[in-house]
Amino acid sequence: MKGYSVVGKPTPRIDGVAKVTGEARFTGDLVLPRVLYAKILRSPYPHANILNIDTTRAERLKGVKAIITGKDVIGIQLNRLYSPIKDEPILAGDKVRYIGDEVAVVAAEDEDVAREALELISVEYELLPAILNVEEAMVAGAPIIHGHANNNIAYQISANFGDLEQGFKESEYIREDTYTTAYYTNCSIETDVCLAQFDSSGKLTLWTPTQSTYIIQKDIANTLGLAEGKVRVIAPHIGGSFGSRLSGEPHHCLAALLAQKTGRPVMLKLDLEEILNRGNSMIIQLKTGVKKDGTLLSRKLKVIADAGGYLGLTGLDVQIAGLRNMLPYKLAAFQFEGLAVYTNNPVRGFLSGEGIRVANFASSIQLDQIAEDLGIDPLDICLKNAIQPGYIMANKIKIGSCGLTECIQKVVEKAGWDGKRGRLRREHRGFGIGCGSASSGGKGVLTHSISAATVKLQEDGSVVLLTGLPDMGQGAHTILAQIAAEVLGLPLEKILIYSADTELSPVDLGALGQRGTYITGNAVKSAAEEARRQLLEVAAESMDANIEDLEIQGGRIFIKNNPEKEMPVSGVVQTSQRSERGQPIMGKGFYNPNSEPPDHITFSFDAQVAEIELDPETGKIKLKKVNVAHDVGFAINPLAVEGQIHSQVWSGGDMTLFQERILKEGQNLNPSFLDYKFSTAMDAPEIETTIVETIEPYGPFGAKEVGRGPIMSIGQAIVNAVYDATGVRIKSFPITPEKIHSTFT
Amino acid sequence: MKGYSVVGKPTPRIDGVAKVTGEARFTGDLVLPRVLYAKILRSPYPHANILNIDTTRAERLKGVKAIITGKDVIGIQLNRLYSPIKDEPILAGDKVRYIGDEVAVVAAEDEDVAREALELISVEYELLPAILNVEEAMVAGAPIIHGHANNNIAYQISANFGDLEQGFKESEYIREDTYTTAYYTNCSIETDVCLAQFDSSGKLTLWTPTQSTYIIQKDIANTLGLAEGKVRVIAPHIGGSFGSRLSGEPHHCLAALLAQKTGRPVMLKLDLEEILNRGNSMIIQLKTGVKKDGTLLSRKLKVIADAGGYLGLTGLDVQIAGLRNMLPYKLAAFQFEGLAVYTNNPVRGFLSGEGIRVANFASSIQLDQIAEDLGIDPLDICLKNAIQPGYIMANKIKIGSCGLTECIQKVVEKAGWDGKRGRLRREHRGFGIGCGSASSGGKGVLTHSISAATVKLQEDGSVVLLTGLPDMGQGAHTILAQIAAEVLGLPLEKILIYSADTELSPVDLGALGQRGTYITGNAVKSAAEEARRQLLEVAAESMDANIEDLEIQGGRIFIKNNPEKEMPVSGVVQTSQRSERGQPIMGKGFYNPNSEPPDHITFSFDAQVAEIELDPETGKIKLKKVNVAHDVGFAINPLAVEGQIHSQVWSGGDMTLFQERILKEGQNLNPSFLDYKFSTAMDAPEIETTIVETIEPYGPFGAKEVGRGPIMSIGQAIVNAVYDATGVRIKSFPITPEKIHSTFT
Repeated sequence: MKGYSVVGKPTPRIDGVAKVTGEARFTGDLVLPRVLYAKILRSPYPHANILNIDTTRAERLKGVKAIITGKDVIGIQLNRLYSPIKDEPILAGDKVRYIGDEVAVVAAEDEDVAREALELISVEYELLPAILNVEEAMVAGAPIIHGHANNNIAYQISANFGDLEQGFKESEYIREDTYTTAYYTNCSIETDVCLAQFDSSGKLTLWTPTQSTYIIQKDIANTLGLAEGKVRVIAPHIGGSFGSRLSGEPHHCLAALLAQKTGRPVMLKLDLEEILNRGNSMIIQLKTGVKKDGTLLSRKLKVIADAGGYLGLTGLDVQIAGLRNMLPYKLAAFQFEGLAVYTNNPVRGFLSGEGIRVANFASSIQLDQIAEDLGIDPLDICLKNAIQPGYIMANKIKIGSCGLTECIQKVVEKAGWDGKRGRLRREHRGFGIGCGSASSGGKGVLTHSISAATVKLQEDGSVVLLTGLPDMGQGAHTILAQIAAEVLGLPLEKILIYSADTELSPVDLGALGQRGTYITGNAVKSAAEEARRQLLEVAAESMDANIEDLEIQGGRIFIKNNPEKEMPVSGVVQTSQRSERGQPIMGKGFYNPNSEPPDHITFSFDAQVAEIELDPETGKIKLKKVNVAHDVGFAINPLAVEGQIHSQVWSGGDMTLFQERILKEGQNLNPSFLDYKFSTAMDAPEIETTIVETIEPYGPFGAKEVGRGPIMSIGQAIVNAVYDATGVRIKSFPITPEKIHSTFT
Repeated sequence: MKGYSVVGKPTPRIDGVAKVTGEARFTGDLVLPRVLYAKILRSPYPHANILNIDTTRAERLKGVKAIITGKDVIGIQLNRLYSPIKDEPILAGDKVRYIGDEVAVVAAEDEDVAREALELISVEYELLPAILNVEEAMVAGAPIIHGHANNNIAYQISANFGDLEQGFKESEYIREDTYTTAYYTNCSIETDVCLAQFDSSGKLTLWTPTQSTYIIQKDIANTLGLAEGKVRVIAPHIGGSFGSRLSGEPHHCLAALLAQKTGRPVMLKLDLEEILNRGNSMIIQLKTGVKKDGTLLSRKLKVIADAGGYLGLTGLDVQIAGLRNMLPYKLAAFQFEGLAVYTNNPVRGFLSGEGIRVANFASSIQLDQIAEDLGIDPLDICLKNAIQPGYIMANKIKIGSCGLTECIQKVVEKAGWDGKRGRLRREHRGFGIGCGSASSGGKGVLTHSISAATVKLQEDGSVVLLTGLPDMGQGAHTILAQIAAEVLGLPLEKILIYSADTELSPVDLGALGQRGTYITGNAVKSAAEEARRQLLEVAAESMDANIEDLEIQGGRIFIKNNPEKEMPVSGVVQTSQRSERGQPIMGKGFYNPNSEPPDHITFSFDAQVAEIELDPETGKIKLKKVNVAHDVGFAINPLAVEGQIHSQVWSGGDMTLFQERILKEGQNLNPSFLDYKFSTAMDAPEIETTIVETIEPYGPFGAKEVGRGPIMSIGQAIVNAVYDATGVRIKSFPITPEKIHSTFT
């Protein structure tokens, strides 16, 4: 592209060596003098009143420094930026609402003592009838989980775009289907953890893995009644997030309160079992009307999510399920109703854009079936309805850059679709197609969305980039460094990044909503551009040249038509700082997608063809090959883009074929990586990736999101391929061998 | 003053609580996993060839991880920004040049093992004749300490302003005197220390107390051949500096090399004995010509400094001794010659503006004597010659704000000079006057002088101020916080400071040269002003008002003529960040005194009257009372200003009466606080302080330096008071009881 030097080149992660050598420090690796270790006592019952808690035996255990129970924190409710209600005490008060609900917390000299202390706490429960599915929860007369919620409905949202009834009236074919998904969970290798410390000014410092130090700061400050300036949140290296880690949670608050109470730092690491005990499930009801040629006209979507004992971020999940379901196809009318319903299941938590994934998954599977019903090739129905640049959606959003059709064409061509689809059932093989789209930055969902950045040049021409964006493992910092290096004409290794510290970093809403490359990337670009202007000004003066005649490349500033006249960037910085002007080379920048036209949201698009093979003996589906094409606008780091696409394909494939939390009476039966299945390298499909570049005008160098797209479309492609191979349509996920096998007669 | 809310008010230190509770972490308090401890083996001889070093026994000691000797680092010479030559290897190579010269360094699992290892290293020396005073060193045929230095002259400088000979021709009285000073030393309570760590990218992080992380970064990078971006220097809390800690030193380099060699962090703490083994001594030769009425006409100054075995910063010391000697009196012609001479004494190090202090001390004592010789009241000769605003010095520098005359008048009035001076000898009491001046920021001496700062507002209206300026205990951060709070109309406690980290802080040359309040203060003011403009812009838009009608005070923005219409600053930040503009409130600023007119340097001025009492039995001088007045431009923090003045009076008084390193054959005989005397609270004089405010146009809120002035004039005042009480003029310092007693006949 246009002679770029750093962006557009496959670039290994800048944090790669630190991570593979073990040098990188994660929160759990941090060492503070006199630190205490905390553990949480959790409810063994899905629904029960707490009659009494006796901590006296635990208090007497040597090494125990503090115990907090619900009665010590009466009235302290989690106050989350992304939750419309406050329904969750940081420790259960008079009752527990799911197996795993926080009941007490202990800080001790080491973790073993803390664990032992938990066993010495006696809690007297009075069992209540538990509600374990959303339909029962909404029945009149069902036990009430929260006093404020009639029919246990925690959250409700609806939206209506275009004339739905008119659409159905004009429809020549209408289908109604219901789909259900398993309870999934995030699978971060690093479990949730935080280290909390108070100083003598009453300021809390909290180290914790998170997508957004900004949100954690706000949530903790609001929950604990502290000013934001009295809460500093720092994210060290992070071992994954996958949609979680974007809100203040009980463990943050409990570590903070223990630190306050003891006057010592407190480390609270959750066990894997504790973090695998969350993740929600949805029921999707769809009614879709089309013309005979497959043209989509009207869709009615109802999403019912199991919120579990507390709403958490399930409301947000339901909201985005609806708001993003119109994509990636043209759709004149759309109605959405979303519900989040309290049950006594362990749910709390947010899985990477789960609502969107599930809803789009469902509507695309249904589209494949409609094609079948109408005798249309599923490829043709995709192409016919595929959204195009300039299309104005029913909600008045105008599509900008869009490479969906190109993505579809690329994958069907590479997969050899025409010769194979519908012809290999006898060989127990099948092909399916899926298409997806994801917003770049969450505009329209996130109420406010600021990213700022600063760059400072040192006298050797190195650059210190301060950003609030954490790198959760997705390679965001490498992208930001590439952007700064490209703008400043420097080699990548000259860029040093410090990030994700509410105090020292500029403000940044964080990585959620695929904001990293698109929004923080724009902020970094703008900061680097200011520094570049300063460099050129000083160089022009020193070299007696016009600014517009100057170019920076490879750390040298030269006159375009006379490239022998040059100065190193380091020399220009020195000249600037040491001259009479004494000007540091420092730039600051910010970006907010809400400054774009109100009818514009930037979306990525993608298409996939999956090839599967059925084992007719067992019903097991093997994902053999995936052809994937993703319109990412511009691939700033093609290596990372490919990695992200692969990870989405794997992840989405896993959720379709493997992943499932087994809940029984509200108890999670498989909270370990031995029992909670996902695919290993041995199960991996061959993945052929095509990067489609459409150069988004608002994106940095034309880039859009890449971290979320294909996770949605792989599921559709697999389901549709399973149908192609077997003639069986599965509507409840995952597609386990048992489910396939049960259809064999 | 002008209705200021925060500046101009006596303000306790913002770091006070952290320091008194022990929460503040100094470098030696830092904990890193797997840290090693290092100790240095030093030469026991003042001058000797190293024939052989055998480290084999030390290497075999359990727990020893690395040993470095001179032959491992051949060619690595200290490369200091403020030293004109490179004469000092980081470890002695083929010879040692003073008792204490670094010979080897050991890193071990703990400090005891490292110490034990030092004893197991055998060094074979061949003794060389030692030179132990500067006069002998310069004699032709004297042993040569460095091959490059003829006559052992390490550094030479001369300057000539005005017509010296004409001045002497016109003089009606000429005096020549020679003064000598003891070897003083800095007395930081925290000894020199550094913690060094390399990461896998080859970047060195160095935590160390310093006046300037910028200079340490540069010096270490240049010495070790690293790019500056590969050296990050962080100054944690600092336990004093008193002129030291402004250059890269062997201990920094050795810790770094050990960290590199072992792949582990290395802590190197010097013992008190090691840091008290430095500090120089000067001989001052003065020839001064005056009119009969005392008007100064011409002065010739020669300074000969003992540089010890290596030049270190003694060249800078000699240079500023000359450049600043014209002040604080009008002087038409001035000639200066400065020499730094190698000896085999332990000297290396820089003491708070020592050269200036000593030279001005000498010339002011001589002025007192000239007054005596001419039968003029010493007060009158000060007043007659006192520099005035607008005066153009012989070096063409034009004096700006100047309250010297007012200072003199204030102290003589308060001390009751007229009734006492010259009348109390029988009571063994005496009064003396001294006057001084110090530059604010070192313009004209420091080749370049940049300070930058950024401020960022958080959504609760708190401010994060990033500055490169370390607080060495002088209260600089409180001043900077006050400046930011005043400009932003916020209470002081809303300002959070992060400082002195080459990577995260904006560039700043540091605290040397009294730069803190004046230069960094201006940078902070400018950064805060940018943020203030942003706040007012957003507020004006929100409140539908004109920017110029708005005022900020106490965290609220209101319309001046309609103060009921208001918004909290926190609300304005939220509005700005959360609105469509999505603009963070962030300001950056910088200041460089070289941007002021070339003929302008900002000076502080001060005067003191000392009252002393002689014990006729022992010759001991008791400093009873000091009246001091200081023109500080504007006292941003009157409490800190008073504290600084008191500390200068004590310090200067101590150097005049107590402090002295006893050197014998190059061996420091009193390297401990038991033997190296300074005054305690029991010896403290009563100090009456007058703050004179002249509102310097270039200073932030009119402020000038306060950290250096009165240390110079107290010595003169004491010496002159001693003469008043005893009739004895002492020309070699300190004025010990022995010296006074020896004059009794």
